[in-house]
Amino acid sequence: MVYYLGLVGVAVFAISGALAADRKGSDWVGVLFLASATALGGGTLRDVLLKREAVFWIANPTYLWVVIGATVFTIIYVRYFKPPTNALNFADAIGLAMFSIVGAKIAEAEGMTPLIVVTMGVFTGVAGGIIRDVLANEIPLIFRSGEPIYSVSAASGIIAYLGLKYLGVPSQTASLSGVAVIAATRFAGIFWHIKLPEFSVRKH
Amino acid sequence: MVYYLGLVGVAVFAISGALAADRKGSDWVGVLFLASATALGGGTLRDVLLKREAVFWIANPTYLWVVIGATVFTIIYVRYFKPPTNALNFADAIGLAMFSIVGAKIAEAEGMTPLIVVTMGVFTGVAGGIIRDVLANEIPLIFRSGEPIYSVSAASGIIAYLGLKYLGVPSQTASLSGVAVIAATRFAGIFWHIKLPEFSVRKH
Amino acid sequence: MVYYLGLVGVAVFAISGALAADRKGSDWVGVLFLASATALGGGTLRDVLLKREAVFWIANPTYLWVVIGATVFTIIYVRYFKPPTNALNFADAIGLAMFSIVGAKIAEAEGMTPLIVVTMGVFTGVAGGIIRDVLANEIPLIFRSGEPIYSVSAASGIIAYLGLKYLGVPSQTASLSGVAVIAATRFAGIFWHIKLPEFSVRKH
Repeated sequence: MVYYLGLVGVAVFAISGALAADRKGSDWVGVLFLASATALGGGTLRDVLLKREAVFWIANPTYLWVVIGATVFTIIYVRYFKPPTNALNFADAIGLAMFSIVGAKIAEAEGMTPLIVVTMGVFTGVAGGIIRDVLANEIPLIFRSGEPIYSVSAASGIIAYLGLKYLGVPSQTASLSGVAVIAATRFAGIFWHIKLPEFSVRKH
Repeated sequence: MVYYLGLVGVAVFAISGALAADRKGSDWVGVLFLASATALGGGTLRDVLLKREAVFWIANPTYLWVVIGATVFTIIYVRYFKPPTNALNFADAIGLAMFSIVGAKIAEAEGMTPLIVVTMGVFTGVAGGIIRDVLANEIPLIFRSGEPIYSVSAASGIIAYLGLKYLGVPSQTASLSGVAVIAATRFAGIFWHIKLPEFSVRKH
Repeated sequence: MVYYLGLVGVAVFAISGALAADRKGSDWVGVLFLASATALGGGTLRDVLLKREAVFWIANPTYLWVVIGATVFTIIYVRYFKPPTNALNFADAIGLAMFSIVGAKIAEAEGMTPLIVVTMGVFTGVAGGIIRDVLANEIPLIFRSGEPIYSVSAASGIIAYLGLKYLGVPSQTASLSGVAVIAATRFAGIFWHIKLPEFSVRKH
């Protein structure tokens, strides 16, 4: 199941990366590159940092084909239709939910402590978007207050997943609950514009 | 031969990185750092992603000396002469050709499938320039339409190389043909300003 | 001792990363993320490039707790007090000194040649700040001439350390001397605004 969650997450993030190339004047190849970096970047960093045997999309090229398919679909779609912004925000929430839980489960399988499991899960979920924004020369969303509780959603879902497993809930149920917690808090965050307090150095 | 192709590519990319430090107000060390990141960044990412035994410039410090030499040369050269922009675009095309084929051959030697060989070759060729532009806080060339078919050149040269080898052409001849295809399409691209269609979300 | 030097360096760099989130409108999580990237980024790249057995903060989560503690401290501190800019520049100098020598000693322990030891030490010292500036969408300090001999300080301290060891000075004394050289040259650089000559392509 981790595998299919991952594929859906990759497709959704590839679309978000491809759309980020809009207004930069990219050609098709630039779009494909930005989509790949967004969809595969977080998991690649996770695999390199955890010293896994091989980077996931090199071990299994299906991921690359999913990125190529999602990018071509996006390029063709936006020629004829307006991209559905709201639908995409919700898709992005689902992608975040899937990447975070997949990242956490992989760190767990590598025998990491809970702190590292949470860190790696959040990191896998948010890193793709950060790479996308850095490459597109924008301040990453995660550093701007406009972003409603993005990583807090990811962290709380992973903690819910670990807590449920600790209480004896079967792994698959716990995973899906974690995904649901992330998607639900994120939906709520988008819907009601929930923000964490902004950080700034007060003028004294 | 892969080795010497690589050294020439490193020298050319180091010069392009050093020149990118112009107008940023860098001192000599900043120039050296930007030159190193441009010249060694693509190959470093390739080696990390492919889990090679050691990163190439750590295993063989000759590469570092070439970067240092090329940077010192550039710093001294531009004090007395105007940098030859056109010559540099052509040198950059040759660097791209060499890096792409070297990257592809290394991925091949690690037993990768053709899709990964092409991906890694293109990635090795273009990543240095992306790192250079990200560090210099500019939108990477690859995401701007002003860039005439940069990565398409790289991909077609690698496919030519793989196709020729498949047809029984000796590896060395196939490599040189791949390099020639990349350099030639890139020269043509620069000369006639060939571009791929630009991607943008239509206003509906 | 390397261990405690490293912890102090991590705390200082986490504070510098947290303060860099000021004026970007980050919420607490964004601040924590930027602090982590600044404090752990250089050492992470070092460990990945040197193919060490595990990345240091994954092998020993104490580092993560130090980053979390330093970030929370900074967030609370700046609500009530003005950040002491000068004190911070001096703290940053000490952090640079510690990271550079720790990085050099680790590269040495992995059996690297002196050129790689110096490169890795400087890289460990400066990479965190570069990552911080790239994520915050600014031109990294190291590429701007306003930066008084940052990496030259790091390199000279590491060379002093290697030279003293070569002359038979015990490793611990040599390390502390290297730290002192870096901190002292950096203090002097800040105090007297010493700069290297600026690099620019002359108009001919």
